[in-house]
Amino acid sequence: MDDSGPRENRCVFVGLVAASQVLGLLSVVLAGVWMGHFRGGFAWDGTAQEFNLHPLCMVLGLVFLHGDAILVYRVFRNEAKKNVRVLHGIIHLLALVFSIIGFVAVFDFHRTFKIPNEYSLHSWCGMATLVLFCLQWVMGMMFFLFPAASYGLRTAYLPIHVFCGLVLMAMSIASSLLGIMEKILLSIRPTYSQFTPEGVLANSLGILLVCFGILLGYLITREEYRRPPNPEEEALSVHFKTLTESGSPSSP
Amino acid sequence: MDDSGPRENRCVFVGLVAASQVLGLLSVVLAGVWMGHFRGGFAWDGTAQEFNLHPLCMVLGLVFLHGDAILVYRVFRNEAKKNVRVLHGIIHLLALVFSIIGFVAVFDFHRTFKIPNEYSLHSWCGMATLVLFCLQWVMGMMFFLFPAASYGLRTAYLPIHVFCGLVLMAMSIASSLLGIMEKILLSIRPTYSQFTPEGVLANSLGILLVCFGILLGYLITREEYRRPPNPEEEALSVHFKTLTESGSPSSP
Repeated sequence: MDDSGPRENRCVFVGLVAASQVLGLLSVVLAGVWMGHFRGGFAWDGTAQEFNLHPLCMVLGLVFLHGDAILVYRVFRNEAKKNVRVLHGIIHLLALVFSIIGFVAVFDFHRTFKIPNEYSLHSWCGMATLVLFCLQWVMGMMFFLFPAASYGLRTAYLPIHVFCGLVLMAMSIASSLLGIMEKILLSIRPTYSQFTPEGVLANSLGILLVCFGILLGYLITREEYRRPPNPEEEALSVHFKTLTESGSPSSP
Repeated sequence: MDDSGPRENRCVFVGLVAASQVLGLLSVVLAGVWMGHFRGGFAWDGTAQEFNLHPLCMVLGLVFLHGDAILVYRVFRNEAKKNVRVLHGIIHLLALVFSIIGFVAVFDFHRTFKIPNEYSLHSWCGMATLVLFCLQWVMGMMFFLFPAASYGLRTAYLPIHVFCGLVLMAMSIASSLLGIMEKILLSIRPTYSQFTPEGVLANSLGILLVCFGILLGYLITREEYRRPPNPEEEALSVHFKTLTESGSPSSP
Protein backbone atom coordinates (compact mmCIF):
# COMPACT_ATOMS: atom_id res chain seq x y z
CA MET A 1 0.00 0.00 0.00
CA ASP A 2 1.23 3.53 -0.87
CA ASP A 3 2.16 5.58 2.22
CA SER A 4 3.17 8.75 0.35
CA GLY A 5 -0.12 10.46 1.40
CA PRO A 6 0.89 11.82 4.84
CA ARG A 7 4.35 12.92 3.62
CA GLU A 8 2.84 14.67 0.59
CA ASN A 9 0.25 16.25 2.88
CA ARG A 10 3.07 17.45 5.16
CA CYS A 11 4.95 18.97 2.19
CA VAL A 12 1.82 20.83 1.03
CA PHE A 13 1.28 22.12 4.58
CA VAL A 14 4.90 23.35 4.90
CA GLY A 15 4.65 24.99 1.46
CA LEU A 16 1.41 26.78 2.37
CA VAL A 17 2.80 27.99 5.73
CA ALA A 18 5.94 29.26 3.95
CA ALA A 19 3.79 31.02 1.36
CA SER A 20 1.71 32.66 4.12
CA GLN A 21 4.91 33.96 5.76
CA VAL A 22 6.20 35.33 2.45
CA LEU A 23 2.86 37.09 1.84
CA GLY A 24 2.73 38.47 5.39
CA LEU A 25 6.35 39.71 5.42
CA LEU A 26 5.96 41.19 1.92
CA SER A 27 2.90 43.10 3.18
CA VAL A 28 4.95 44.57 6.05
CA VAL A 29 7.77 45.50 3.64
CA LEU A 30 5.33 47.11 1.18
CA ALA A 31 3.69 49.14 3.99
CA GLY A 32 7.21 50.25 5.04
CA VAL A 33 8.23 51.18 1.48
CA TRP A 34 4.96 53.06 0.91
CA MET A 35 5.33 55.17 4.04
CA GLY A 36 9.16 55.31 4.04
CA HIS A 37 9.79 56.03 0.36
CA PHE A 38 6.61 57.68 -0.95
CA ARG A 39 5.32 59.48 2.18
CA GLY A 40 8.49 60.92 3.75
CA GLY A 41 9.66 58.37 6.31
CA PHE A 42 9.10 57.93 10.04
CA ALA A 43 9.37 60.02 13.21
CA TRP A 44 7.67 60.39 16.62
CA ASP A 45 6.86 64.10 16.66
CA GLY A 46 3.14 64.42 15.93
CA THR A 47 3.74 65.20 12.22
CA ALA A 48 2.87 63.24 9.09
CA GLN A 49 6.00 61.17 9.74
CA GLU A 50 4.43 59.94 12.98
CA PHE A 51 1.22 59.12 11.11
CA ASN A 52 3.36 56.99 8.76
CA LEU A 53 3.99 54.58 11.62
CA HIS A 54 0.24 53.85 11.77
CA PRO A 55 -0.08 51.74 8.57
CA LEU A 56 3.23 49.97 9.25
CA CYS A 57 2.32 49.07 12.86
CA MET A 58 -1.20 47.94 11.96
CA VAL A 59 -0.04 45.65 9.12
CA LEU A 60 2.73 44.26 11.35
CA GLY A 61 0.66 43.91 14.54
CA LEU A 62 -3.01 43.53 13.70
CA VAL A 63 -2.51 41.47 10.53
CA PHE A 64 0.85 39.65 10.37
CA LEU A 65 1.55 38.90 14.06
CA HIS A 66 -2.17 38.37 14.76
CA GLY A 67 -2.27 35.80 11.94
CA ASP A 68 0.88 34.07 13.15
CA ALA A 69 -0.49 33.92 16.71
CA ILE A 70 -3.40 31.87 15.34
CA LEU A 71 -1.19 29.81 13.05
CA VAL A 72 1.01 28.45 15.90
CA TYR A 73 -1.81 26.01 16.76
CA ARG A 74 -1.34 24.41 13.34
CA VAL A 75 2.45 24.73 12.95
CA PHE A 76 3.18 23.28 16.43
CA ARG A 77 0.27 20.87 16.52
CA ASN A 78 2.47 18.03 17.80
CA GLU A 79 4.04 20.04 20.65
CA ALA A 80 2.74 20.18 24.24
CA LYS A 81 -0.54 22.07 24.29
CA LYS A 82 0.46 24.23 27.26
CA ASN A 83 3.60 25.57 25.52
CA VAL A 84 1.70 26.36 22.32
CA ARG A 85 -0.92 28.21 24.37
CA VAL A 86 1.79 30.38 25.99
CA LEU A 87 3.36 31.13 22.58
CA HIS A 88 -0.12 32.01 21.23
CA GLY A 89 -0.60 34.46 24.13
CA ILE A 90 2.86 36.04 23.74
CA ILE A 91 2.56 36.65 19.97
CA HIS A 92 -0.94 38.05 20.57
CA LEU A 93 0.52 40.42 23.17
CA LEU A 94 3.20 41.55 20.70
CA ALA A 95 0.47 42.12 18.09
CA LEU A 96 -1.47 44.16 20.64
CA VAL A 97 1.58 46.32 21.55
CA PHE A 98 2.30 47.18 17.88
CA SER A 99 -1.41 47.88 17.28
CA ILE A 100 -1.58 50.27 20.24
CA ILE A 101 1.58 52.12 19.05
CA GLY A 102 -0.10 52.43 15.64
CA PHE A 103 -3.28 53.83 17.23
CA VAL A 104 -1.35 56.34 19.39
CA ALA A 105 0.54 57.51 16.27
CA VAL A 106 -2.63 58.42 14.37
CA PHE A 107 -4.27 60.11 17.40
CA ASP A 108 -1.07 62.19 17.98
CA PHE A 109 -1.05 63.23 14.33
CA HIS A 110 -4.74 64.22 14.46
CA ARG A 111 -4.11 66.28 17.61
CA THR A 112 -1.24 68.21 15.98
CA PHE A 113 -3.26 69.09 12.88
CA LYS A 114 -6.63 69.44 14.69
CA ILE A 115 -8.20 66.69 12.55
CA PRO A 116 -11.33 65.14 14.14
CA ASN A 117 -10.99 61.52 15.30
CA GLU A 118 -13.25 58.60 14.43
CA TYR A 119 -15.26 60.10 11.59
CA SER A 120 -14.43 57.67 8.75
CA LEU A 121 -15.63 54.13 8.09
CA HIS A 122 -11.98 53.03 8.36
CA SER A 123 -11.73 54.49 11.87
CA TRP A 124 -15.07 52.97 12.96
CA CYS A 125 -14.06 49.51 11.76
CA GLY A 126 -10.50 49.88 13.05
CA MET A 127 -11.58 50.99 16.53
CA ALA A 128 -14.17 48.19 16.77
CA THR A 129 -11.48 45.69 15.73
CA LEU A 130 -8.93 46.91 18.31
CA VAL A 131 -11.46 47.00 21.18
CA LEU A 132 -12.70 43.48 20.35
CA PHE A 133 -9.09 42.32 19.89
CA CYS A 134 -8.21 43.54 23.43
CA LEU A 135 -11.33 41.87 24.81
CA GLN A 136 -10.48 38.62 23.03
CA TRP A 137 -6.96 38.70 24.48
CA VAL A 138 -8.17 39.35 28.04
CA MET A 139 -10.86 36.65 27.77
CA GLY A 140 -8.31 34.21 26.32
CA MET A 141 -5.93 34.89 29.22
CA MET A 142 -8.70 34.45 31.80
CA PHE A 143 -10.10 31.27 30.30
CA PHE A 144 -6.98 29.45 29.08
CA LEU A 145 -3.68 30.87 30.44
CA PHE A 146 -4.61 31.68 34.05
CA PRO A 147 -7.87 29.77 34.12
CA ALA A 148 -10.39 31.33 36.44
CA ALA A 149 -13.33 29.58 34.78
CA SER A 150 -14.54 26.02 35.36
CA TYR A 151 -13.86 23.18 32.91
CA GLY A 152 -17.45 23.37 31.63
CA LEU A 153 -17.29 27.12 30.98
CA ARG A 154 -13.93 26.79 29.22
CA THR A 155 -15.23 24.00 26.99
CA ALA A 156 -18.28 26.09 26.10
CA TYR A 157 -16.18 29.21 25.44
CA LEU A 158 -13.53 27.52 23.25
CA PRO A 159 -15.52 27.44 19.94
CA ILE A 160 -16.60 31.07 20.54
CA HIS A 161 -12.92 32.06 21.11
CA VAL A 162 -11.92 30.31 17.87
CA PHE A 163 -14.79 31.85 15.86
CA CYS A 164 -14.05 35.35 17.25
CA GLY A 165 -10.36 34.91 16.36
CA LEU A 166 -11.23 34.26 12.73
CA VAL A 167 -13.76 37.13 12.65
CA LEU A 168 -11.16 39.49 14.16
CA MET A 169 -8.61 38.38 11.56
CA ALA A 170 -11.10 39.20 8.77
CA MET A 171 -11.99 42.53 10.44
CA SER A 172 -8.28 43.42 10.77
CA ILE A 173 -7.72 42.85 7.06
CA ALA A 174 -10.94 44.72 6.12
CA SER A 175 -9.90 47.68 8.31
CA SER A 176 -6.45 47.69 6.69
CA LEU A 177 -7.98 47.71 3.20
CA LEU A 178 -10.21 50.64 4.22
CA GLY A 179 -7.14 52.43 5.58
CA ILE A 180 -5.27 51.94 2.31
CA MET A 181 -8.27 53.28 0.35
CA GLU A 182 -8.62 56.31 2.64
CA LYS A 183 -4.89 57.15 2.70
CA ILE A 184 -4.41 56.81 -1.06
CA LEU A 185 -7.45 58.99 -1.87
CA LEU A 186 -6.42 61.65 0.65
CA SER A 187 -2.84 61.63 -0.74
CA ILE A 188 -2.88 61.20 -4.54
CA ARG A 189 -6.53 61.50 -5.62
CA PRO A 190 -5.80 63.50 -8.83
CA THR A 191 -3.24 60.97 -10.15
CA TYR A 192 -4.60 57.71 -8.65
CA SER A 193 -6.51 56.87 -11.85
CA GLN A 194 -3.29 57.16 -13.92
CA PHE A 195 -1.83 54.00 -12.38
CA THR A 196 1.05 55.88 -10.70
CA PRO A 197 3.66 53.73 -8.87
CA GLU A 198 2.34 54.77 -5.42
CA GLY A 199 -1.24 53.85 -6.33
CA VAL A 200 -0.22 50.48 -7.80
CA LEU A 201 1.94 49.76 -4.73
CA ALA A 202 -0.94 50.59 -2.35
CA ASN A 203 -3.36 48.39 -4.35
CA SER A 204 -0.81 45.56 -4.40
CA LEU A 205 -0.46 45.81 -0.62
CA GLY A 206 -4.25 45.40 -0.36
CA ILE A 207 -4.26 42.33 -2.62
CA LEU A 208 -1.36 40.79 -0.65
CA LEU A 209 -3.31 41.25 2.60
CA VAL A 210 -6.37 39.54 1.06
CA CYS A 211 -4.20 36.61 -0.15
CA PHE A 212 -2.57 36.33 3.31
CA GLY A 213 -6.03 36.18 4.90
CA ILE A 214 -7.31 33.52 2.49
CA LEU A 215 -4.24 31.31 2.95
CA LEU A 216 -4.42 31.68 6.73
CA GLY A 217 -8.14 30.85 6.71
CA TYR A 218 -7.43 27.73 4.65
CA LEU A 219 -4.64 26.54 6.96
CA ILE A 220 -6.76 27.10 10.06
CA THR A 221 -10.04 25.58 8.90
CA ARG A 222 -8.67 22.55 6.99
CA GLU A 223 -9.50 19.43 9.00
CA GLU A 224 -6.26 17.53 8.32
CA TYR A 225 -4.12 20.36 9.73
CA ARG A 226 -5.90 20.35 13.10
CA ARG A 227 -4.16 19.21 16.27
CA PRO A 228 -4.43 15.38 16.47
CA PRO A 229 -6.09 14.04 19.64
CA ASN A 230 -3.46 13.18 22.26
CA PRO A 231 -4.61 10.34 24.57
CA GLU A 232 -2.09 11.34 27.26
CA GLU A 233 -3.29 14.96 27.36
CA GLU A 234 -6.91 13.81 27.25
CA ALA A 235 -6.32 11.47 30.20
CA LEU A 236 -4.63 14.25 32.16
CA SER A 237 -7.50 16.54 31.23
CA VAL A 238 -10.10 14.11 32.56
CA HIS A 239 -8.00 13.53 35.67
CA PHE A 240 -7.79 17.26 36.36
CA LYS A 241 -11.46 17.70 35.58
CA THR A 242 -12.39 15.05 38.12
CA LEU A 243 -10.03 16.40 40.76
CA THR A 244 -10.38 20.13 40.40
CA GLU A 245 -13.14 20.92 37.90
CA SER A 246 -10.54 22.98 35.98
CA GLY A 247 -9.20 20.54 33.38
CA SER A 248 -8.09 21.47 29.90
CA PRO A 249 -10.61 21.47 27.04
CA SER A 250 -9.31 20.56 23.60
CA SER A 251 -7.28 23.24 21.82
CA PRO A 252 -8.48 25.39 18.95
CA MET B 1 -34.85 14.91 32.28
CA ASP B 2 -35.11 18.43 30.84
CA ASP B 3 -35.72 18.41 27.08
CA SER B 4 -35.84 22.20 26.66
CA GLY B 5 -32.33 22.19 25.09
CA PRO B 6 -33.24 21.43 21.44
CA ARG B 7 -36.29 23.76 21.54
CA GLU B 8 -34.23 26.60 23.04
CA ASN B 9 -31.53 25.93 20.46
CA ARG B 10 -34.18 26.11 17.71
CA CYS B 11 -35.46 29.45 19.08
CA VAL B 12 -31.94 30.91 19.14
CA PHE B 13 -31.39 29.71 15.56
CA VAL B 14 -34.67 31.27 14.33
CA GLY B 15 -33.83 34.52 16.16
CA LEU B 16 -30.35 34.67 14.61
CA VAL B 17 -31.67 33.95 11.09
CA ALA B 18 -34.33 36.66 11.55
CA ALA B 19 -31.67 39.11 12.77
CA SER B 20 -29.49 38.31 9.73
CA GLN B 21 -32.43 39.05 7.41
CA VAL B 22 -33.15 42.35 9.19
CA LEU B 23 -29.47 43.36 8.89
CA GLY B 24 -29.31 42.31 5.22
CA LEU B 25 -32.54 44.07 4.22
CA LEU B 26 -31.60 47.18 6.20
CA SER B 27 -28.30 47.28 4.29
CA VAL B 28 -30.17 47.18 0.96
CA VAL B 29 -32.55 49.93 2.17
CA LEU B 30 -29.64 52.10 3.37
CA ALA B 31 -27.81 51.70 0.05
CA GLY B 32 -31.06 52.70 -1.70
CA VAL B 33 -31.60 55.74 0.56
CA TRP B 34 -27.97 56.84 0.15
CA MET B 35 -28.09 56.73 -3.64
CA GLY B 36 -31.78 57.66 -3.99
CA HIS B 37 -31.97 60.52 -1.49
CA PHE B 38 -28.41 61.89 -1.17
CA ARG B 39 -26.99 61.16 -4.64
CA GLY B 40 -29.89 62.08 -6.99
CA GLY B 41 -31.76 58.82 -7.64
CA PHE B 42 -31.56 56.20 -10.37
CA ALA B 43 -31.61 56.05 -14.18
CA TRP B 44 -30.12 53.96 -17.01
CA ASP B 45 -28.54 56.66 -19.19
CA GLY B 46 -24.78 56.53 -18.50
CA THR B 47 -24.95 59.44 -16.02
CA ALA B 48 -24.29 59.54 -12.27
CA GLN B 49 -27.84 58.22 -11.81
CA GLU B 50 -26.82 55.03 -13.59
CA PHE B 51 -23.73 54.78 -11.37
CA ASN B 52 -26.11 54.96 -8.38
CA LEU B 53 -27.45 51.53 -9.33
CA HIS B 54 -23.96 50.06 -8.75
CA PRO B 55 -23.88 50.22 -4.91
CA LEU B 56 -27.54 49.15 -4.66
CA CYS B 57 -27.13 46.15 -6.98
CA MET B 58 -23.87 45.02 -5.34
CA VAL B 59 -25.30 45.15 -1.80
CA LEU B 60 -28.45 43.36 -2.98
CA GLY B 61 -26.75 40.76 -5.20
CA LEU B 62 -23.20 40.16 -4.04
CA VAL B 63 -23.90 40.51 -0.30
CA PHE B 64 -27.57 39.92 0.65
CA LEU B 65 -28.66 37.33 -1.94
CA HIS B 66 -25.21 35.69 -1.94
CA GLY B 67 -25.49 35.31 1.86
CA ASP B 68 -29.01 33.93 1.66
CA ALA B 69 -27.96 31.43 -1.03
CA ILE B 70 -25.47 30.01 1.49
CA LEU B 71 -27.92 30.22 4.40
CA VAL B 72 -30.55 27.97 2.74
CA TYR B 73 -28.39 24.96 3.68
CA ARG B 74 -28.95 25.80 7.35
CA VAL B 75 -32.56 27.11 7.18
CA PHE B 76 -33.83 24.10 5.19
CA ARG B 77 -31.51 21.54 6.73
CA ASN B 78 -34.36 19.05 7.20
CA GLU B 79 -35.66 19.29 3.61
CA ALA B 80 -34.64 16.99 0.72
CA LYS B 81 -31.03 17.77 -0.16
CA LYS B 82 -31.76 17.90 -3.90
CA ASN B 83 -34.39 20.65 -3.52
CA VAL B 84 -32.13 22.73 -1.26
CA ARG B 85 -29.34 22.41 -3.81
CA VAL B 86 -31.63 23.73 -6.59
CA LEU B 87 -32.74 26.65 -4.39
CA HIS B 88 -29.06 27.39 -3.57
CA GLY B 89 -28.25 27.49 -7.30
CA ILE B 90 -31.26 29.70 -8.16
CA ILE B 91 -30.56 32.33 -5.47
CA HIS B 92 -26.89 32.31 -6.52
CA LEU B 93 -27.98 32.93 -10.12
CA LEU B 94 -30.17 35.86 -8.97
CA ALA B 95 -27.21 37.25 -7.01
CA LEU B 96 -25.05 36.93 -10.12
CA VAL B 97 -27.62 38.74 -12.33
CA PHE B 98 -27.86 41.73 -9.93
CA SER B 99 -24.07 41.82 -9.59
CA ILE B 100 -23.58 41.91 -13.37
CA ILE B 101 -26.17 44.73 -13.71
CA GLY B 102 -24.22 46.62 -11.02
CA PHE B 103 -20.95 46.10 -12.90
CA VAL B 104 -22.42 47.21 -16.24
CA ALA B 105 -23.80 50.36 -14.55
CA VAL B 106 -20.37 51.50 -13.34
CA PHE B 107 -18.62 50.70 -16.64
CA ASP B 108 -21.33 52.66 -18.55
CA PHE B 109 -20.85 55.63 -16.22
CA HIS B 110 -17.05 55.52 -16.63
CA ARG B 111 -17.44 55.41 -20.45
CA THR B 112 -19.72 58.49 -20.45
CA PHE B 113 -17.32 60.57 -18.33
CA LYS B 114 -14.10 59.03 -19.76
CA ILE B 115 -13.01 57.81 -16.31
CA PRO B 116 -10.41 54.99 -16.45
CA ASN B 117 -11.61 51.57 -15.30
CA GLU B 118 -10.01 49.30 -12.71
CA TYR B 119 -7.51 51.69 -11.15
CA SER B 120 -8.64 51.63 -7.50
CA LEU B 121 -8.20 48.97 -4.81
CA HIS B 122 -12.01 48.76 -4.65
CA SER B 123 -12.19 47.90 -8.34
CA TRP B 124 -9.33 45.37 -8.11
CA CYS B 125 -10.99 43.56 -5.19
CA GLY B 126 -14.48 43.87 -6.70
CA MET B 127 -13.43 42.47 -10.08
CA ALA B 128 -11.54 39.59 -8.45
CA THR B 129 -14.63 38.82 -6.35
CA LEU B 130 -17.02 38.82 -9.33
CA VAL B 131 -14.75 36.66 -11.51
CA LEU B 132 -14.26 34.12 -8.70
CA PHE B 133 -18.00 34.26 -7.90
CA CYS B 134 -18.84 33.34 -11.53
CA LEU B 135 -16.26 30.55 -11.45
CA GLN B 136 -17.67 29.23 -8.17
CA TRP B 137 -21.19 29.20 -9.64
CA VAL B 138 -20.12 27.36 -12.81
CA MET B 139 -18.08 24.83 -10.81
CA GLY B 140 -20.99 24.33 -8.39
CA MET B 141 -23.35 23.67 -11.32
CA MET B 142 -20.94 21.20 -12.94
CA PHE B 143 -20.16 19.30 -9.75
CA PHE B 144 -23.49 19.29 -7.91
CA LEU B 145 -26.49 20.33 -10.08
CA PHE B 146 -25.68 18.63 -13.40
CA PRO B 147 -22.92 16.39 -12.10
CA ALA B 148 -20.30 15.68 -14.72
CA ALA B 149 -17.73 14.63 -12.11
CA SER B 150 -17.38 11.25 -10.40
CA TYR B 151 -18.48 10.65 -6.80
CA GLY B 152 -14.86 10.75 -5.62
CA LEU B 153 -14.15 14.07 -7.33
CA ARG B 154 -17.35 15.61 -5.94
CA THR B 155 -16.54 14.47 -2.42
CA ALA B 156 -13.04 15.95 -2.73
CA TYR B 157 -14.36 19.22 -4.19
CA LEU B 158 -17.15 19.79 -1.61
CA PRO B 159 -14.97 21.24 1.23
CA ILE B 160 -13.18 23.48 -1.29
CA HIS B 161 -16.57 24.72 -2.59
CA VAL B 162 -17.71 25.47 0.98
CA PHE B 163 -14.45 27.23 1.89
CA CYS B 164 -14.49 29.28 -1.33
CA GLY B 165 -18.12 30.27 -0.62
CA LEU B 166 -17.15 31.72 2.76
CA VAL B 167 -14.07 33.45 1.33
CA LEU B 168 -16.18 34.96 -1.47
CA MET B 169 -18.73 36.19 1.10
CA ALA B 170 -15.92 37.91 3.04
CA MET B 171 -14.45 39.34 -0.19
CA SER B 172 -17.90 40.65 -1.24
CA ILE B 173 -18.28 42.50 2.06
CA ALA B 174 -14.69 43.81 1.95
CA SER B 175 -15.21 45.07 -1.63
CA SER B 176 -18.45 46.78 -0.56
CA LEU B 177 -16.69 48.49 2.36
CA LEU B 178 -13.96 49.70 -0.03
CA GLY B 179 -16.65 50.97 -2.41
CA ILE B 180 -18.35 52.92 0.40
CA MET B 181 -14.99 54.45 1.42
CA GLU B 182 -14.15 55.40 -2.19
CA LYS B 183 -17.60 56.83 -2.99
CA ILE B 184 -17.87 58.88 0.20
CA LEU B 185 -14.38 60.39 -0.19
CA LEU B 186 -14.99 61.23 -3.87
CA SER B 187 -18.38 62.79 -2.98
CA ILE B 188 -18.15 64.66 0.34
CA ARG B 189 -14.47 64.73 1.29
CA PRO B 190 -14.50 68.34 2.66
CA THR B 191 -17.46 67.70 5.01
CA TYR B 192 -16.96 63.99 5.83
CA SER B 193 -15.03 64.78 9.04
CA GLN B 194 -17.97 66.92 10.30
CA PHE B 195 -20.20 63.87 10.82
CA THR B 196 -22.69 64.98 8.13
CA PRO B 197 -25.83 62.78 7.73
CA GLU B 198 -24.58 61.30 4.45
CA GLY B 199 -21.24 60.34 5.98
CA VAL B 200 -22.84 58.77 9.05
CA LEU B 201 -25.34 56.89 6.84
CA ALA B 202 -22.52 55.52 4.65
CA ASN B 203 -20.50 54.44 7.72
CA SER B 204 -23.60 52.82 9.23
CA LEU B 205 -24.14 50.89 6.01
CA GLY B 206 -20.58 49.59 6.31
CA ILE B 207 -21.07 48.51 9.93
CA LEU B 208 -24.37 46.77 9.02
CA LEU B 209 -22.60 44.81 6.28
CA VAL B 210 -19.89 43.71 8.74
CA CYS B 211 -22.55 42.60 11.27
CA PHE B 212 -24.45 40.72 8.52
CA GLY B 213 -21.23 38.91 7.57
CA ILE B 214 -20.38 37.97 11.18
CA LEU B 215 -23.88 36.65 11.87
CA LEU B 216 -23.90 34.68 8.63
CA GLY B 217 -20.47 33.24 9.40
CA TYR B 218 -21.68 32.16 12.84
CA LEU B 219 -24.83 30.48 11.48
CA ILE B 220 -22.88 28.64 8.79
CA THR B 221 -19.93 27.42 10.85
CA ARG B 222 -21.77 26.48 14.08
CA GLU B 223 -21.78 22.69 14.35
CA GLU B 224 -25.32 22.29 15.78
CA TYR B 225 -26.88 24.15 12.82
CA ARG B 226 -25.38 21.79 10.24
CA ARG B 227 -27.56 19.42 8.23
CA PRO B 228 -28.15 16.26 10.30
CA PRO B 229 -27.06 12.99 8.67
CA ASN B 230 -29.99 11.39 6.83
CA PRO B 231 -29.68 7.56 6.71
CA GLU B 232 -32.10 7.33 3.76
CA GLU B 233 -30.13 9.85 1.67
CA GLU B 234 -26.85 8.22 2.70
CA ALA B 235 -28.17 4.80 1.63
CA LEU B 236 -29.34 6.20 -1.71
CA SER B 237 -25.97 7.91 -2.09
CA VAL B 238 -24.08 4.68 -1.57
CA HIS B 239 -26.48 2.88 -3.91
CA PHE B 240 -25.92 5.47 -6.62
CA LYS B 241 -22.19 5.42 -5.98
CA THR B 242 -22.08 1.65 -6.45
CA LEU B 243 -24.28 1.74 -9.52
CA THR B 244 -23.03 4.79 -11.37
CA GLU B 245 -19.98 6.23 -9.55
CA SER B 246 -21.91 9.52 -9.42
CA GLY B 247 -23.55 9.42 -6.00
CA SER B 248 -24.21 12.41 -3.80
CA PRO B 249 -21.57 13.51 -1.30
CA SER B 250 -22.78 15.10 1.90
CA SER B 251 -24.02 18.68 1.63
CA PRO B 252 -22.17 21.79 2.77
